[in-house]
Amino acid sequence: MKISRPTLVLNKTICLQNIELMVEKAKRHHVRFRPHFKTHQSIEIGRWFRQQGVRQITVSSVEMARYFASDGWDDLTIAIPFNRHETDELNQVIELAAVNLVTDNAETLHYLKEHLKKPVGIFVEISTGYARTGIPSFAIHAIETVVDAIIHHPMLNFKGFLTHSGHAYQARSRNEIQNIQFDTLQKMAQIKKQYLPRFPDLEISVGDTPTCSVSENFQGVDEIRPGNFVFYDLTQYQLGACHIDDIAVRMHCPVISKQASRNEIIIYGGAIHFSKDWLLHYDSKPSYGRIIIRKNNETQLLGTSSCLSRLSQEHGVIKVNSKEFQQIEIGDIVEIIPVHSCLTAQAMGRYITTKGDTISMMPREQTMLTQ
Amino acid sequence: MKISRPTLVLNKTICLQNIELMVEKAKRHHVRFRPHFKTHQSIEIGRWFRQQGVRQITVSSVEMARYFASDGWDDLTIAIPFNRHETDELNQVIELAAVNLVTDNAETLHYLKEHLKKPVGIFVEISTGYARTGIPSFAIHAIETVVDAIIHHPMLNFKGFLTHSGHAYQARSRNEIQNIQFDTLQKMAQIKKQYLPRFPDLEISVGDTPTCSVSENFQGVDEIRPGNFVFYDLTQYQLGACHIDDIAVRMHCPVISKQASRNEIIIYGGAIHFSKDWLLHYDSKPSYGRIIIRKNNETQLLGTSSCLSRLSQEHGVIKVNSKEFQQIEIGDIVEIIPVHSCLTAQAMGRYITTKGDTISMMPREQTMLTQ
Repeated sequence: MKISRPTLVLNKTICLQNIELMVEKAKRHHVRFRPHFKTHQSIEIGRWFRQQGVRQITVSSVEMARYFASDGWDDLTIAIPFNRHETDELNQVIELAAVNLVTDNAETLHYLKEHLKKPVGIFVEISTGYARTGIPSFAIHAIETVVDAIIHHPMLNFKGFLTHSGHAYQARSRNEIQNIQFDTLQKMAQIKKQYLPRFPDLEISVGDTPTCSVSENFQGVDEIRPGNFVFYDLTQYQLGACHIDDIAVRMHCPVISKQASRNEIIIYGGAIHFSKDWLLHYDSKPSYGRIIIRKNNETQLLGTSSCLSRLSQEHGVIKVNSKEFQQIEIGDIVEIIPVHSCLTAQAMGRYITTKGDTISMMPREQTMLTQ
Repeated sequence: MKISRPTLVLNKTICLQNIELMVEKAKRHHVRFRPHFKTHQSIEIGRWFRQQGVRQITVSSVEMARYFASDGWDDLTIAIPFNRHETDELNQVIELAAVNLVTDNAETLHYLKEHLKKPVGIFVEISTGYARTGIPSFAIHAIETVVDAIIHHPMLNFKGFLTHSGHAYQARSRNEIQNIQFDTLQKMAQIKKQYLPRFPDLEISVGDTPTCSVSENFQGVDEIRPGNFVFYDLTQYQLGACHIDDIAVRMHCPVISKQASRNEIIIYGGAIHFSKDWLLHYDSKPSYGRIIIRKNNETQLLGTSSCLSRLSQEHGVIKVNSKEFQQIEIGDIVEIIPVHSCLTAQAMGRYITTKGDTISMMPREQTMLTQ
């Protein structure tokens, strides 16, 4: 494979293995597997899931729902509080597929009742500790208000309660991830217990990559929705959610300059390729990725003291030690394990497999069609 | 204009004014104006420059050179150390336009000598304090080695010395920006003085948006290459390089959730729309943007204590005070002044003007054509 520019390279073997392991884990725990497709955003990679029996998926926008519905996915959850301004687009998608929406407020539901053309499923979003969206799990009156706004309306089918334990990304150990999972399940179980008598079919939907990778406790859970595990990344590795060899994507970037006075290697590959998510490096500075070099066709993962340390629009600055500095030459292609594979994939817009095949993603233009 | 999703809105009047002011400043100081087009990446906006007499431009990739050459731009500088793996693509572009390359090493030049099909101009990149690429201005032997590698070769025309004072972005006052400009000009003048006897036509090319906006000192400068000024942004405002009313782009985002317990407004609009560049907020936490709300068709810029405080892939969290919290409703469209307009434009991929017209950018796919 000839690399001439910053390129996102996907190892399909590792990716298939990541999918298989999560499919098996869901089966073992008797929970439905509704993977989040916002990480890969690719019809082709979606088909790898389908080949392993997956039939339901999660997406993060109406446009993404439309994109995957166009490939025959007919059971989708749009896992972001519904944006009422996209009701026309939603009405198009529900002609093709069964759609579940998520909300944490009654206002949106009242709007939907007047503008929906076909019924949708509604999950009420609960916050179990991640301070973003969702009704706090203890706010029982607020939960009741939203449930009330759903029921007794022919266009809205109450599906159950959904949460995203995004605070698992702040964990510092596998044990802490397990504790977060335990806490989440306790809170969701309490709500389930309260509502099950009235709604015997209600479901509890949870699941992010850290908890779904680390935990073996899925008590009371009906459905999991991890997404990032399809590729994993340096963030997941640092959390203890994967091994370094489980990471299926790497950026390949040409070396364009060397700065001997600072032991820095400059690559063509910057913020527009990697995105700017970072991890705290051991020296309290940001790291945008771990470095792999290839010499005589052997790869070598550089130590943790070396990293992609700065990014401008197109340039990346890799900090290495003196010995590594000598090993890397202008014109070399270095490989970088990205900090956040979702954002890197989104920035790059397509994959090249290690065998050299191109895998396309949802076109950026498509995300804008509805303007 | 109907906004239904995160949308990058461009005020053309402000943009034209920003262009005009910089055109006039360059004329006043008798320097060539070679604006950097990586900020807007749009043929249509490029034409606004052409209408004001601009004929030479700067770009940041070979693909961007090809994109603008396709619209008749025939004098381009690709302002990143040349990546030898794109020599084939470069050979296509130099069929259409005169191209200047930038380098800080002789290896790349030796490679080019063997593979170029037509002559190119070469600028030697000098580092005057921004620790990224370029030969340190004091490293006279290293500079001489690179100049030596250029001259006496029919394919390489030595054009002069180029620098980018990116450290101006770290300044904390307009005075500090002026000092950085003074320091840069001193260093470049010394090199110019040394080489002018041998190369009477050599040029000094400098210029980023902070120094070009703030400084009135361009002594010894032949050419300036600012880019961001076309839109400006919150970073430039914080540096003192522009007024808040000079910022020509805003993100318009729908409100999808309210979190009363934390005075937080959740918008549809996240890292994939804004990028993740941030400024330090007064409370030592990141700010991803300043907030403008619109009530009864009047706009109101919220105070500095309110900001876009967190971003995940599609969600943004706006921190406001209690009074502002009451003013904003689910379904409202809020406007956000982005921290870094270059990366936000790159992430969004197109503009909608305040009059509702669509302005396209270089297609993302095009940046990948050469794989």
